[in-house]
Parts: sequence; C-alpha cells; structure tokens
Amino acid sequence: MMDRLKRQIAFIVEVDKLKSIFRQSLITDATRFENDAEHSWHLALMAFLLAEHTDEKVDLLRVMKMVLMHDIVEIDAGDTYCYDEKARQDKREREEKCAERIFSMLPEEQAREMFELWEEFELMETPEARYAAVLDRLQPLLLNYTAQGISWKNHGISVEQVLERNQIVQGSSEKLWRFVKELLDDAVARGYLIQDNQNP
Amino acid sequence: MMDRLKRQIAFIVEVDKLKSIFRQSLITDATRFENDAEHSWHLALMAFLLAEHTDEKVDLLRVMKMVLMHDIVEIDAGDTYCYDEKARQDKREREEKCAERIFSMLPEEQAREMFELWEEFELMETPEARYAAVLDRLQPLLLNYTAQGISWKNHGISVEQVLERNQIVQGSSEKLWRFVKELLDDAVARGYLIQDNQNP
Repeated sequence: MMDRLKRQIAFIVEVDKLKSIFRQSLITDATRFENDAEHSWHLALMAFLLAEHTDEKVDLLRVMKMVLMHDIVEIDAGDTYCYDEKARQDKREREEKCAERIFSMLPEEQAREMFELWEEFELMETPEARYAAVLDRLQPLLLNYTAQGISWKNHGISVEQVLERNQIVQGSSEKLWRFVKELLDDAVARGYLIQDNQNP
Repeated sequence: MMDRLKRQIAFIVEVDKLKSIFRQSLITDATRFENDAEHSWHLALMAFLLAEHTDEKVDLLRVMKMVLMHDIVEIDAGDTYCYDEKARQDKREREEKCAERIFSMLPEEQAREMFELWEEFELMETPEARYAAVLDRLQPLLLNYTAQGISWKNHGISVEQVLERNQIVQGSSEKLWRFVKELLDDAVARGYLIQDNQNP
C-alpha cells in the first residue's frame, strides 16, 4: 500500500514541471507568458463557473479532471502553438511518448484513467470533452483580449484564424459562441486583431 | 442573461491576478517561488489522485472546487506565510475584505457559493475541508523536500513547527500521516530541516 502511495507521490512531484512549460498567451497584466499549470487551474475554475451555459449535459467532475491533466503531456513535448501548422504535424507523436512515460508512473488503473481522459479530451467527441475544449479556447481569448492582443499581433494572427479555432464553441454552447463573436468583433475594432484582407 | 455571463467573465479575468501572488515554496527545480494559481492546480490534481487514502468519505467535486478557489482572497490580502505569527494576526480581516470585493463580482448565488466554500475551507470542520487542508499541507511539504529544504532553511523552520502545522493530516488520513512523518524524519536526516534543540 505504501508502494502505491509512493508511485502517486512520485507522479505528483514529476508534474510540478508543468509550471515551467510556457504558452504563447500573456497573463492579463502582460508582464510575462502564462504557464501550463496556471492555464489548467484557470480552466478548472471556469468549468464550474460557466457550466450553466453549455447546451449539453456534462459530468462536471470529469470535465475538471480532464482540464487539470490535459497539458501534462507537454512536459516532454513542449507547448505547441495552436496556429503553428508545422509544429502541429508531429504534436501527437511527441505527446504520446510523454504520456507513456509520465502516466505510467502511476498505479495501473490510475495510469489507464489518465490515458482515457487525455484521449477523450483530444477526440472532442463527448459533451465533457467538447466543453473542456470550449474552455481551452475561451480562456486564451480572454487573456489575449485583456492584454490588448499583444500575442496575436506578435504572431500576425487574423480574426478568421481565431474564429476557425473557436468553431467548437458553437457546438457546445450557443451563448458562449455569441459572446466569443462579440468579443472578436470588438478586438478587431480596437485593432487587437487583423482581418485576413489586411494581411500584408 | 448576457449580463450574467459578463459578470462571470469579469470575475474570471480578475482572478488571473492569482498568478502574480507568490508563496514561500520554491517549485521543485528551485529556480523560483511558486504562485497561488499553480499551487491551486497542484492541489486539485492531487485531490483526485489521493482520494482513496482519506479515512472519511468525501465529495470530491466539492473538494476540488474548494482547493481551486481557496486562495483567491490573497489577491488583495497577499500570501501570509504559515509560520509568520505576526502576519497571521490580521490575516482574516485582510482576506474578508478581498472576499467581499471579488466574490461579489459574480451573480448572487455563485457569490454565495464562493463565500460558503471559503468559509468551509477555513473552518476545517467537514471531511471535505479537512481533506482540502491535508492537500494544502502536503503539497508544500513535497515541494520543500524536493527543493532540499531551501525555503525551510531560509526561514529557520524546525521539524516540530512543520509537524504541528501538519497535525490535521492525522485526523483525515492515517496513511498520509504515516507518509508525512517518514518524509519529515528523512528531511531531518538529510539536514533539510532542523530540530528545535538545534535552534540557536
């Protein structure tokens, strides 16, 4: 039994590394990039605050587990910027290797639960995974908007790209989708986001 | 309805500030202090991985909500080091003011839920609050041990102080309590923690 606990503790210590995996979004005061652990915390908190807006019934505990663990695979694989088409090509392969190494530190049935949660999140086919994906899109949108679009501008991202990336919101929550579209219109009006026909 | 959502979004953006509230624990690679958002993420992940070890039946979703939100009151109040007796004197007052300001940004019944969760966490009288407190003790222990006791040494903390702070573990999980005692014995043996009779 103590051996079982020690495997869990080793995993808990290992995933501390998620605090050093940085994303492309700035925190709202724009002083630095956000890391994966902070991002995951923010999603889990949003999960229970916004649950009333999903059009599908979701198991909230499962959503929270999913968003808390979904980026662990980036510990070895690194963060892949969602608009970097080249880096996205071998994303899956890099992340699978990391999942294999880290999830296997846990007792067998917990390792299996981690693999299942991650796979479910990636496939976006259940209401829980769709809602987790919605949160995972909406949160950087809020950060990028609040930090006046600095990250979007640095990468030359257009509103059309952001809209395409956020399509999943439409399938999960009409209300959040309306909110996203309003926010993006406003971001364009404020010059935080360019439109495709403005691209050089 | 959109007004309700906008209040929730304003709250979600506001609590981003938790990422800039730093604690006294170093992350495991000892390069910098941990912030409250990362700490809360770590606790929530631990909550579901270690739930089997509690001696009391707990509502896991409630525990997770509690650990995700328990430090939000530090956004205005700042982190109060658990071994700083002077700073702890007006801790409650500072945190209540912050709770009032920030929780009230939410729609009324969600604000009330936040107050209730926070109050429950602080009182440590329910199985859920006790388990949340256990996680809140165990996590910095793991960080401090892994970072070779740097933070304990900087503050001249003794094993007796840490044991006292961790008493709550005993009431929630015999197994985790045994683990804590073994870890602390080892920390003393390795010179990460002093014993009271070694204090100058």
